[in-house]
Amino acid sequence: MLETLDLKARLGNKACREAMDRLELELPILHRAILEHGIPVLVLFEGWFSSGRGDSIGQLVHHLDPRATRVHVTHASSEEDRRRPWPWRFWRRTPARGRIEVFDRSWYYLLWNQHDEGSLDAARWERELQAVGEFERQLVDDGTALVKCWLHIGPGEQKRRLKAWAKDETQRWRVSDEDWKRHRAYPRRLALAEEMLARTHTHRAPWTLIEAEDENHRRVRVLAAVAEAMRHALEQRGIPVPTPELLPDAAEAGHPLEPIVVADPLKAPPPIPPDSPLARVDLSRRLERDEYAKRLKKAQARLRELEFLCYTRRLPAVVVFEGWDAAGKGGAIRRLTESLDPRGYAVVPIAAPTAAEKAHHYLWRFWNEIPKDGHWAIFDRSWYGRVLVERVEGFAGEAEWRRAYQEINEFERALVSHGTVVVKLWLHISPEEQLDRFRRREQSPLRRHKISAEDWRNRGKWPPYLAAVSDMLRQTSTTHAPWTVVEANDKLWARVKVVETVIRAIEARL
Amino acid sequence: MLETLDLKARLGNKACREAMDRLELELPILHRAILEHGIPVLVLFEGWFSSGRGDSIGQLVHHLDPRATRVHVTHASSEEDRRRPWPWRFWRRTPARGRIEVFDRSWYYLLWNQHDEGSLDAARWERELQAVGEFERQLVDDGTALVKCWLHIGPGEQKRRLKAWAKDETQRWRVSDEDWKRHRAYPRRLALAEEMLARTHTHRAPWTLIEAEDENHRRVRVLAAVAEAMRHALEQRGIPVPTPELLPDAAEAGHPLEPIVVADPLKAPPPIPPDSPLARVDLSRRLERDEYAKRLKKAQARLRELEFLCYTRRLPAVVVFEGWDAAGKGGAIRRLTESLDPRGYAVVPIAAPTAAEKAHHYLWRFWNEIPKDGHWAIFDRSWYGRVLVERVEGFAGEAEWRRAYQEINEFERALVSHGTVVVKLWLHISPEEQLDRFRRREQSPLRRHKISAEDWRNRGKWPPYLAAVSDMLRQTSTTHAPWTVVEANDKLWARVKVVETVIRAIEARL
Repeated sequence: MLETLDLKARLGNKACREAMDRLELELPILHRAILEHGIPVLVLFEGWFSSGRGDSIGQLVHHLDPRATRVHVTHASSEEDRRRPWPWRFWRRTPARGRIEVFDRSWYYLLWNQHDEGSLDAARWERELQAVGEFERQLVDDGTALVKCWLHIGPGEQKRRLKAWAKDETQRWRVSDEDWKRHRAYPRRLALAEEMLARTHTHRAPWTLIEAEDENHRRVRVLAAVAEAMRHALEQRGIPVPTPELLPDAAEAGHPLEPIVVADPLKAPPPIPPDSPLARVDLSRRLERDEYAKRLKKAQARLRELEFLCYTRRLPAVVVFEGWDAAGKGGAIRRLTESLDPRGYAVVPIAAPTAAEKAHHYLWRFWNEIPKDGHWAIFDRSWYGRVLVERVEGFAGEAEWRRAYQEINEFERALVSHGTVVVKLWLHISPEEQLDRFRRREQSPLRRHKISAEDWRNRGKWPPYLAAVSDMLRQTSTTHAPWTVVEANDKLWARVKVVETVIRAIEARL
Repeated sequence: MLETLDLKARLGNKACREAMDRLELELPILHRAILEHGIPVLVLFEGWFSSGRGDSIGQLVHHLDPRATRVHVTHASSEEDRRRPWPWRFWRRTPARGRIEVFDRSWYYLLWNQHDEGSLDAARWERELQAVGEFERQLVDDGTALVKCWLHIGPGEQKRRLKAWAKDETQRWRVSDEDWKRHRAYPRRLALAEEMLARTHTHRAPWTLIEAEDENHRRVRVLAAVAEAMRHALEQRGIPVPTPELLPDAAEAGHPLEPIVVADPLKAPPPIPPDSPLARVDLSRRLERDEYAKRLKKAQARLRELEFLCYTRRLPAVVVFEGWDAAGKGGAIRRLTESLDPRGYAVVPIAAPTAAEKAHHYLWRFWNEIPKDGHWAIFDRSWYGRVLVERVEGFAGEAEWRRAYQEINEFERALVSHGTVVVKLWLHISPEEQLDRFRRREQSPLRRHKISAEDWRNRGKWPPYLAAVSDMLRQTSTTHAPWTVVEANDKLWARVKVVETVIRAIEARL
C-alpha cells in the first residue's frame, strides 16, 4: 500500500491557505453536530518517528471543542498496562457518545514494535492482528467513527529530521538512541508496517495514508480526513450535514434571529462595594491589534519552550480559569494552548457533576484530574464552583461552602507542596460589557448556541455572585496559589495578560 | 500510646465465639442501614508486618455486602502514583456514598517508610503529617465514617512469625529481605510509629489500637471497631440503629409479614424445550450436610493454595456468575471467597449501567474491571446481561444482542489469549424451586430486602428468559471459555460444585 504514495507531493502556500480556510470553518460546525448527536469519534495517529504526529494533533485539536476532546499519548506502557491484555489500556480510553478521543500512537505501534523486536512470534502476530480487527469492528458496530491516519516519510527525510533535531538544543531530547536504531532498521520496519497496514485496512475501519514530507500537504490531508469521517458519520445517520456556505446565508436571507430573552433582568447594575477586591480593577485596559499580535506571538513561542522545559524537568502545572459568563474564557484558553504540543497538556472542562461525582466529596473529581509530573492541566471552571455557583444557587449548604475555602486552600497547598505550579485567573468584565456580548451572541448564527435563557437568569443574580467572587478572592488568594484578576473588557488585553501571567508563574519556578 | 497496650491480652475460645456470633448478626444489619442511608465508610488497616492485616480484612469483608465493598492494596506505589502528589492515589479510592472501601496499608505506611528511609526530612515530615490531618478532616466533614486500625505486635512475636513463614513453603514468598531488615529496625520504627500515631489521633479521626498477638482477641476487636464506627455514624444522623435482638422479636410479636405480591404471575411453568442445553440438567443432584462440610472445607483450602500460586506465577482469573433470580449466586460467591485472601481477588457486582457506562460500548465497563496478572475478578452478573436482561427487556435492539454473541466470544478470547483463566457458571433452578425461595424470602425479616415486585415480574417472563439462556449457552460455550451449568435446586450441591469447578479450571492451567 505504501508504495502507492507519492512522497514528492507538495502543496503550495496559497492552495494550502485556501484549503485551510475552508476546513477551519467546517471543522467546528461538524464537531458541533457530532456533539449534538452523540457520536463517538476516535482519531489515531500512527506512522514513522518524526513524521509530524505532534504538529498534526495540535492542528486538529485547535479546531475542535476542547470540552469534548482529549489527547492520549500511548506509546509508553505502564506496569499496570503490562499486567493486563493489551486492549485494556485502549478500551479504557474509547470515546463516550459525543466525545472525540485523539490517540498519539495506538495498538499498532505496540504490535509493530513487539513484532520487530521479536517478542511476538508468528502465530501470536496473527492472533493479535485478528484481535485488532475484532476490537475495531466492535467499536464501529457500536457507532464509533474511527479515523486511522498513517503519516509516511521516506528514510532520507527521516534522517534529515533526526539530524536537525539533534542539532537544536530545545529539540534534542526528543531523539533517543532507540530512535536512531529504528531509523537504521527502516527497511525491515517498512516491510512489517506494509503487512500490518494491509491486514487491518478494512472496509469499515480503513487507513488514511498521508504523505507527510511536505508540511502543507500533511496538515491539509489530516484535517480533511477527520472532517470527511465526521461528515460520513453524520450522513450515515441521515443527519443533514451543515456546510459553512449554507449556514450564514440562510440566516441572512429572511430569517432574522429573534433574541432569546428580550428584557435584561439586571436593570441597573449595582456599584461594586468599595471593600471588594474587584473595586480597584481598571477595566479600561486595552491593547491595539498590532501590539496584541506582536506580544501574543512572542509569548506563545516562549510558552512552548516552557512546555518542553517543564516536560524534561518533570514540573507539573495547573491553570484555573474562572470568570463571568461571556468573559472570554474559551478564547483565552485557545490562545494559551494554540502553540502548545497537545501531548503535554489537557484542557479539563468542568460542567455539572455526574451521578458518580455527586456521590463523592466535591474535591474527588478534581483530584482525579490533576496532572502528572511534567504535564499541565488547564481547568475551564474548577473546584471554585463550590464557593460560586453552588453557594449562590444553594446546591451547597452554608456550612459546606464556608468550610470549602479552607479545604480549597489545603488542596492547592498539597499540589504546590508536591511541586506543582498553580495559576488562578479570574476574567473580569463589567455588567454592561456582558450585556453587550450576550446581545451580539444572540445575533450570530455561529455563536448563538453559546447563550441560553440560563445565562440571562444568572445575569439577574449579579449581586450575589459579586459577593461570592469577592469572598473567594479574599479567602483563597494565598502566597502559594495567588489569584490574578484579568481585566477582560478588552479581549486582546485579556488574552495577552493570561499567557504572560502563566509564563511568569512558570518561569518563577524553573 | 502504644505502651498502653497489653500485648498479653488473650481471649478464650468460648468468649470469642460468643462475641463473634453477635457480631456476625450485627454487621450485615448495620451494613444494610449504612447502604440505605448512603454513608461512605473508609476502613484502613495499618500496623506491623505479619500482624494479621490480611486475616482481619478477610474476616471483615466476609460479613459485608460484597456489592458495596472493595479492598484496596496500597503498599506498593506505581509509576503513575509517584508522578503525582501522594494524596492522589488515595483520593481516587475514597468511598462514594453507601460504599465501604477497605485499605490494606494507607498514607501512613507511605510516610512511615519514607521517613524511616530518610527520604522525608524533618520539615517535610511535619508538612505531610499536617496534610494527613487535612485529608482526613475533609473526608469526615463530608460525612465519611473513617476507621483507622493499628494492629500491634511486639518484636519477639514478629520474629516468631517471620521464622514460621520462612519455614512454610506456601508462605515463604511473603517474607522478603526488606521485611527482615525492617524487623531488625523495630525499635527505631516503633519510635516513629509512636510519633505518627500520636500526631494523627484526632477527635474526629481517632486510631483504634489493637493488640494483635492473640488471634481471637484481634479478630473480635477489629469487627467490633468497625461495627462501632458504623453504629456511631448512624446515630450521628439520628437514624435508629437496628439491633439483632429487636429485629426478629418485633417481627414475630404481632407484625406478621404480608407477602409483597400475592399471585404468582407464572401459573404453570412451561416445560423446557428438548433442544435447550438446560433440558438434560439433573436438578435432583444433592449433598448431605456432612459430606458438604467435608468437601467444602477441603476445596476451600485448596483454593487458597491456588490463590497463592496464581499470585506468584502472575496468573489472572475471571469467574462469571450468572443464574436465575434466587438461584443462590450470593451464597455461592461467599463460599468461594470465604477462605481467600481478599487482597488477591475482587468481587465485581454488576447492576444497571450508570450514565457514563451507558455512554460507552457495553463492553467498556467490563474491560475496565478485568483483573491484572496474578489477581482474580469474580463477576456477580456480567457482560452476559447484554444477551439476557437487555435482550428480553428490549434494552438492546435485536441487531445489537445478536451481534453480542460474537463480541463476547472475542472479548473472552482476548482474555484467554493473554493467559487469563475464564470460568463461567450458570446457576440453574427449576421454576418451582424459585417460587418456593421467593415465598421464604418474603417471610424472613432478615432476607426480605432481597425480593421485590420486580423479581415477581421477571418470573412472569420465564419463557423468554429460558430462550435467551439457551441461546447464550449454545452460542458462547467455547473451548477457551466453556460454560458450566450448576444444578442449584440443592444449595449444598451447588456451592461445592462451584468451588470445585473453579479449582479444576485453574489447576488445568497451572
